[in-house]
Amino acid sequence: MKTDIEIAQEAKLADIREIAKRLGLSEDDISLYGKYKAKIPAQNQPKAKMILVTAINPTSAGEGKTTVSIGLADGLRRIGKNVCLALREPSLGPVFGIKGGAAGGGYAQVLPMEDINLHFTGDLHAITAANNLICAVVDNHLYFGNELGLKEIYFKRCMDMNDRSLRDIVIGRNRQGVERETGFDITAASEIMAILCLATDMEDLKKRIGNIIIGINEKGEYVYFRDFKAEGAVAALLKEAMNPNLVQTLEGTPAIVHGGPFANIAHGCNSIRATKTAMSLSDYTVTEAGFGADLGAEKFLDVKCRVAGIEPSCVVVVATVRALKLHGGALKENLGVEDLTALAAGIPNLAKHVENMVNVYRKPVVVAVNRFASDTQAEIALLTKAAEEMNVPVAFTDVFLKGGEGGMELAEKVVKECEKESKLCYSYQLDMPVQDKINAVVTRVYGGKGAEFSEVASRKIAELEAQGYGNLPVIIAKTQYSLSDDQTLLARPTDFTITVKDIVVKGGAGFIVAIAGKIMLMPGLSRHPAAERITVDADGKIDGLF
Amino acid sequence: MKTDIEIAQEAKLADIREIAKRLGLSEDDISLYGKYKAKIPAQNQPKAKMILVTAINPTSAGEGKTTVSIGLADGLRRIGKNVCLALREPSLGPVFGIKGGAAGGGYAQVLPMEDINLHFTGDLHAITAANNLICAVVDNHLYFGNELGLKEIYFKRCMDMNDRSLRDIVIGRNRQGVERETGFDITAASEIMAILCLATDMEDLKKRIGNIIIGINEKGEYVYFRDFKAEGAVAALLKEAMNPNLVQTLEGTPAIVHGGPFANIAHGCNSIRATKTAMSLSDYTVTEAGFGADLGAEKFLDVKCRVAGIEPSCVVVVATVRALKLHGGALKENLGVEDLTALAAGIPNLAKHVENMVNVYRKPVVVAVNRFASDTQAEIALLTKAAEEMNVPVAFTDVFLKGGEGGMELAEKVVKECEKESKLCYSYQLDMPVQDKINAVVTRVYGGKGAEFSEVASRKIAELEAQGYGNLPVIIAKTQYSLSDDQTLLARPTDFTITVKDIVVKGGAGFIVAIAGKIMLMPGLSRHPAAERITVDADGKIDGLF
Repeated sequence: MKTDIEIAQEAKLADIREIAKRLGLSEDDISLYGKYKAKIPAQNQPKAKMILVTAINPTSAGEGKTTVSIGLADGLRRIGKNVCLALREPSLGPVFGIKGGAAGGGYAQVLPMEDINLHFTGDLHAITAANNLICAVVDNHLYFGNELGLKEIYFKRCMDMNDRSLRDIVIGRNRQGVERETGFDITAASEIMAILCLATDMEDLKKRIGNIIIGINEKGEYVYFRDFKAEGAVAALLKEAMNPNLVQTLEGTPAIVHGGPFANIAHGCNSIRATKTAMSLSDYTVTEAGFGADLGAEKFLDVKCRVAGIEPSCVVVVATVRALKLHGGALKENLGVEDLTALAAGIPNLAKHVENMVNVYRKPVVVAVNRFASDTQAEIALLTKAAEEMNVPVAFTDVFLKGGEGGMELAEKVVKECEKESKLCYSYQLDMPVQDKINAVVTRVYGGKGAEFSEVASRKIAELEAQGYGNLPVIIAKTQYSLSDDQTLLARPTDFTITVKDIVVKGGAGFIVAIAGKIMLMPGLSRHPAAERITVDADGKIDGLF
Repeated sequence: MKTDIEIAQEAKLADIREIAKRLGLSEDDISLYGKYKAKIPAQNQPKAKMILVTAINPTSAGEGKTTVSIGLADGLRRIGKNVCLALREPSLGPVFGIKGGAAGGGYAQVLPMEDINLHFTGDLHAITAANNLICAVVDNHLYFGNELGLKEIYFKRCMDMNDRSLRDIVIGRNRQGVERETGFDITAASEIMAILCLATDMEDLKKRIGNIIIGINEKGEYVYFRDFKAEGAVAALLKEAMNPNLVQTLEGTPAIVHGGPFANIAHGCNSIRATKTAMSLSDYTVTEAGFGADLGAEKFLDVKCRVAGIEPSCVVVVATVRALKLHGGALKENLGVEDLTALAAGIPNLAKHVENMVNVYRKPVVVAVNRFASDTQAEIALLTKAAEEMNVPVAFTDVFLKGGEGGMELAEKVVKECEKESKLCYSYQLDMPVQDKINAVVTRVYGGKGAEFSEVASRKIAELEAQGYGNLPVIIAKTQYSLSDDQTLLARPTDFTITVKDIVVKGGAGFIVAIAGKIMLMPGLSRHPAAERITVDADGKIDGLF
């Protein structure tokens, strides 16, 4: 089997103007970034049937959510549909850490993969610069006397790099500025990334940037970035980044790749503008949400869809036999061996996510089982039977090896489900008290008994409700590996509670983050990071990405 | 008078493919970044006559070196020459500080000015990322046990932002990494920027990145970045940034804008690849060097030209009546008033730079006097006479108000001087001892008595010579405001010495930095920075840049 980058580099790409034409856009409509990338103007007449691709809780085996999204889009195109993908753009940091981003794999990739995984069209760099301009302005304000009386500063710098040494730092030493403790988060975890993905237009963007809560003053009141009068400059830095990026799959399906916030601290899906643009220019839009359906799909549906006024026509829940066996207690080194007991014990994880989509959010579901060579007939039969008992169609996909051909069965079933009438229900209403909203997600989506709140969290909830932020949606930041907040509780845990330790109000993004676990916002590199393998030859050909 | 951004936004730009065509490049040769920017492949068959634009020591009045460069290029085009500009690309940080970068002004601008002043084609972001990947890898190495035995780390992080709070910081706090003191420089001051501007191709780039001296080990030996085995990944991040950027002047003259290192800590001119590309594609190439001729032109000639194997056919030294009056002791508030005494007292500054170009570097010179409305006839007559005494032609330019028309007189004189045979002499030979090289610049170029070396500097010079770095060119980092290292000594000081306090070897860039003064490598914002004025409207139109 060829590596991802070999497949990508051997592919013959269509001129991006050809891809744009497939969406009804002319060369004059778009802004080229080389021959195979373009910025396109955001569109706001969503008409397509939108398919959300989500998954079981992730395991070390990987479930292939992005490859299934891409293979499904290629499959839809193969069966004659006018389709457009909407995906997150990868962060640069992890590319040099463990492995490269969200460009798919095998024969289900978006191209040019090297560009998408490295600087792409510069969106993440623009976000980094915008974020750090805010910090420079704030620390400059302290330096010139702190007229606003800032006492505590929440807003941190960011960098698109896995750099653990920047997590906790002291700045302004030796009287170069005002000395204080702070840190860097990775750019994908920044509020600016979340804002970019939720903002509808430039005016909304500026307003959201102005609404960022920088910290509190000596009276304990919020200090907003608008108080520093530089939201226009920060927005100016994001002017190009606001426009969605057009690329293509290996099979020439249009793919809009734009925005990529974390799915724990933020909402974990590509920009609203990208999704609406794809929905305006196609009949079927395939998009995905980060991590498992408890973190990613929940936020996609409860936050993004609500803000954007859109909803999916069908939800695809991706699973693999291997990952489900890990949920059922199999060891990673034994995944090549048939293990019906472990599979049976793991299937309830899938079942819970399917139930949530059907019963909580009221959406048609297709289970996509992403095939591996090691899957046995008996395992497949067991999983098929389980899906039948869930009363949802199951489709087997082989997109990694076969591309769109391997996604055609799924495409057919998805098209059929999309014909069903459905109306999205949210797991909570915005006007509920904050604790009730969190409780609703924990009980209805996670399947737990409820949430417990630390003293700090309770106090902060009372404060934010008093300050008029009670009606914002909630973003629960917890481990992605379990439905609970304990990453060792696999499959379908019950009887657990979620402990909310802290609360952060993101005034610009417009959501309340409930911290339920140790959330890593600045990853580190491994002992031998991918940076040791990546290189570029004399002709500019890159190797070592995969 | 309209503001720069008003003039820029009212201009009707040619499609960048048209501009490329003027250089003999087809659409297939170039990589478009929108309609008005392109990356072009580096060319290496320099044939043009190259004109270096430099200036007197800068004053608060400004001498307009970049506008003269642009106006000269437009003027050359108006008199029928096939011309291409090669300019530095601006840093983002100062745009939000005092004012926007190096895109010229008035009717002598390169466009699109908003793009060039903001993210442009992403080169500075790529340099930032490459630089900071090095730091992440190094600190990760410390975290995993410091196998290389690093004792002291010289290499610092960078950010393209004016952020004084990051000058001196402590990282790795709370056991997140290894705690140590370090800091950020602005990206333009980074060694990666210098490397990008000096590297001839990808292999040279990788080699230079590998040769970066990260610090010293416990035995006092240099530790190189190649010891971390990640120079390929860092080079991969610079793949696109290595290609020159093509834009245009207000009058449609092709302008290659690429690379922009500091002129104190580094060599202060655009990339070698940009200059050679411009020289390969035109008959006349106009380029500039940073600050005054003592810092910028010296490094352009002694470092860049030597590394690149190119030389100018003519040097333009820019001055203004106003700036010369400041050199001669006039007060800024009196610059509108005729002051022949001050002008006469300031002219020796110009004379010294002219002498250097003629006598040391053996190049034909044209003095360009950039006109202001406040210049009186008597002042102009005095300056004309002085130039005659210097035995070089003088041309008056009015490019800010008149564009290329205001540069035609200069263009005619430059063309004539370019016909003269000349052979570049350097101010020192590479095989001289390091102290002698520094002394040669101080005595021959600055006009001082010689250099004094601190104990630290003397020791470091001995060490670097012992380690085989003695044959590198020297980069003297001193104030730009004076020929001396004392910024209050204006006009033409004599009898001074330059004190070299410290020495830094830049193994990747391939030069020795002699620190002769307090060099600010991370600027700060002012009390009311430009960030408070810059904004973007609903249609994405930016305002507040100038």
